[in-house]
Amino acid sequence: MPSAATVRAKRRTTPAVNPRATHLALALRCVAEQSGEISRAGIAAGTGLNRSTASSLIDELIGGGLVREVGSTARTRAGRPGTALALRPDGPAGLGIDVNVDYTAVCVVDLTGKVRYKHVVAEDQRGHGTREILDRVDRLARGARQAAEADGLDLVGSAVAVPGIVDRAGATVTLAPNLGWRDLDVSDLLPAGAHGERAALDNEANFAALSEAGLLRAGGSYLYVSGQIGVGAGIVLDGELYRGSHGWSGEIGHLTVDRNGPPCPCGRRGCLERYAGHEAILRAAGITDGAGTTFGVRPTADLITERAQAGDPATLAALAEAGAVLGGVLAGCLNLLDVGRLVLGGIYRQLAPWLAPEVEREVAAHFLGAGWASPEVTVSTYGAEAPALGAALSVVRTIVADPLRWLTR
Amino acid sequence: MPSAATVRAKRRTTPAVNPRATHLALALRCVAEQSGEISRAGIAAGTGLNRSTASSLIDELIGGGLVREVGSTARTRAGRPGTALALRPDGPAGLGIDVNVDYTAVCVVDLTGKVRYKHVVAEDQRGHGTREILDRVDRLARGARQAAEADGLDLVGSAVAVPGIVDRAGATVTLAPNLGWRDLDVSDLLPAGAHGERAALDNEANFAALSEAGLLRAGGSYLYVSGQIGVGAGIVLDGELYRGSHGWSGEIGHLTVDRNGPPCPCGRRGCLERYAGHEAILRAAGITDGAGTTFGVRPTADLITERAQAGDPATLAALAEAGAVLGGVLAGCLNLLDVGRLVLGGIYRQLAPWLAPEVEREVAAHFLGAGWASPEVTVSTYGAEAPALGAALSVVRTIVADPLRWLTR
Repeated sequence: MPSAATVRAKRRTTPAVNPRATHLALALRCVAEQSGEISRAGIAAGTGLNRSTASSLIDELIGGGLVREVGSTARTRAGRPGTALALRPDGPAGLGIDVNVDYTAVCVVDLTGKVRYKHVVAEDQRGHGTREILDRVDRLARGARQAAEADGLDLVGSAVAVPGIVDRAGATVTLAPNLGWRDLDVSDLLPAGAHGERAALDNEANFAALSEAGLLRAGGSYLYVSGQIGVGAGIVLDGELYRGSHGWSGEIGHLTVDRNGPPCPCGRRGCLERYAGHEAILRAAGITDGAGTTFGVRPTADLITERAQAGDPATLAALAEAGAVLGGVLAGCLNLLDVGRLVLGGIYRQLAPWLAPEVEREVAAHFLGAGWASPEVTVSTYGAEAPALGAALSVVRTIVADPLRWLTR
Repeated sequence: MPSAATVRAKRRTTPAVNPRATHLALALRCVAEQSGEISRAGIAAGTGLNRSTASSLIDELIGGGLVREVGSTARTRAGRPGTALALRPDGPAGLGIDVNVDYTAVCVVDLTGKVRYKHVVAEDQRGHGTREILDRVDRLARGARQAAEADGLDLVGSAVAVPGIVDRAGATVTLAPNLGWRDLDVSDLLPAGAHGERAALDNEANFAALSEAGLLRAGGSYLYVSGQIGVGAGIVLDGELYRGSHGWSGEIGHLTVDRNGPPCPCGRRGCLERYAGHEAILRAAGITDGAGTTFGVRPTADLITERAQAGDPATLAALAEAGAVLGGVLAGCLNLLDVGRLVLGGIYRQLAPWLAPEVEREVAAHFLGAGWASPEVTVSTYGAEAPALGAALSVVRTIVADPLRWLTR
């Protein structure tokens, strides 16, 4: 327990608002939103700052390698054409890695939020040792780094998505039941940034959710539901990830659907993923040949889709049941969280034609506000690459959110 | 859909950060935290601003009636004693009103967050018309206003708690099943502030949750569970209420416990409040004489408590069952939200000796992170007065959070 004097002393060192940091971030955000269409005068108008302040902020961002001049803007209300400004596509970039149960993916995103490289390897990780899994990650990261360097990019940071809960500091995998990881500090084992920065860790559904918000924190507030072997969710509030007190938010896969239900690797019974996880759907649909969820390199979600399209009754029944159970849980999440949109990601994206109507029906039946404003049920923009993309984006989002910290690193 | 040009024009008018607003808020917060112990020099040290800026901010806050000088500070590291500063207890104050199912309460809180007046009237509102309920509210508010005026306070705003969901704008009660209110715009019907400001509306659990955070947004992140006829929850993240996209967050009372369970006034079946609401506990305990939940002016939660203390088996079984069902739902909420603390409020405060152990057991069994960090299960600081107190606090919190807006109103 700190003494009152310590608390007071601490308060005294609380920094006041740093206007330069705030203004640099505002100016950079203006450039990002109006890429190639905005001049220094436009930045002044957009931020409410005076012309000379805006101009010197832009000079600083150009000097720091974040912004470049790209020609002339069209004539605007603000007066004659100016020099158009844009984020640098050859500046700092982020590396995202997704260690999932049945595949590993890497992705490189540049400062403009554009994907510059991606690679996915399907392989079931279960039954492989931690060292073996991390070696595979290393090989993929090396490939991504070579490609990025060849493309003139500076990979300044990396972030790694895992199918489990991660501590808030982003260093330790607290529990990843499907990988058999528990209290595993992987921060030293993962690929670092080009300048030695440690990789940031997070849950795969969190990073997948971030892929939907993009570079500019668009899309408002939503619950992103990621269907994998497990089922996870990422909560995005006003374009920012809500991670919870320990970094464990969104663990809907282990919400109890039925206390007397089938046992779960987490040690409990009747968890949502036993009904709506990838393997649960395969099992219920009677697709049992082959271990795991990839037949060679053929994703089994494709098999489910084909059988559903062909009208296979067992598959349709399995999807209806999974959708109903998932929808019931999501209606409860909406009663608690009240977000305006659900995003179906992971395998649910591909299976949405069969799952979404069931989810909508359950939400209409069980969300208390359904009579006034039904949440949109949408499918994710990205498929299996979403967690790796979101991880890579998280690196560049950090720079865009606080350019001063980047410039003075 | 606005055109790109409209969007651009809008962006141009986005105000830049207003340093004066931010600095006034910082300075006022410093005064509030160190009430009567801090001088102008201390404010400068605490905010990181220079002495003359800090001093002129304080002069502005004194001139605006928010801060007063109260003597001398003790000698500190910052040098010789200065004039001690404190929030004005005779400045603006807030009126909070709680229209609950079986009682109505009013509360006046001054700028320092201190309760200056409170009054609770037990009366079942069910079966009474809206006009009758609002007349009672009006009478109570008039009494509070007279008391506040006699005490030299300026009641600058009022806020009203209702047992239901309220739109985000705080004008319409979307649904209050236990009052029979639906889409009821009450903003013109409720007592206004002394200068005509409209009352702000919110859910009773939200305002009750705010009572726990206090004036200075203390207490971090928690889920406040309010046991009443219904069961509600308020989500507080870093000391601020999280209201959701429509203002409907925290509606845990209608989470489905059993789809085949007893019918609920909301139109669904097996909602949490059918198991853990006040009347459900009374029914399960076999306390059936008397309508509603107050026997005359004697709260029935007292009856439950007495019987539990006397070891009545039916009452103990009813509490164990209610606690187990409540705990199961709360464990699910923790898997989604990951907050570090649960606060048991409303009747759960009084019943905590029997409910809390069951809640803790269910959380340990069903919260995925329970093996690493179990959330604290605490009881609320305030009892039945919590929603009215939180409502009154919400008025003065607004002033403390943004004094410039108040000074230039």
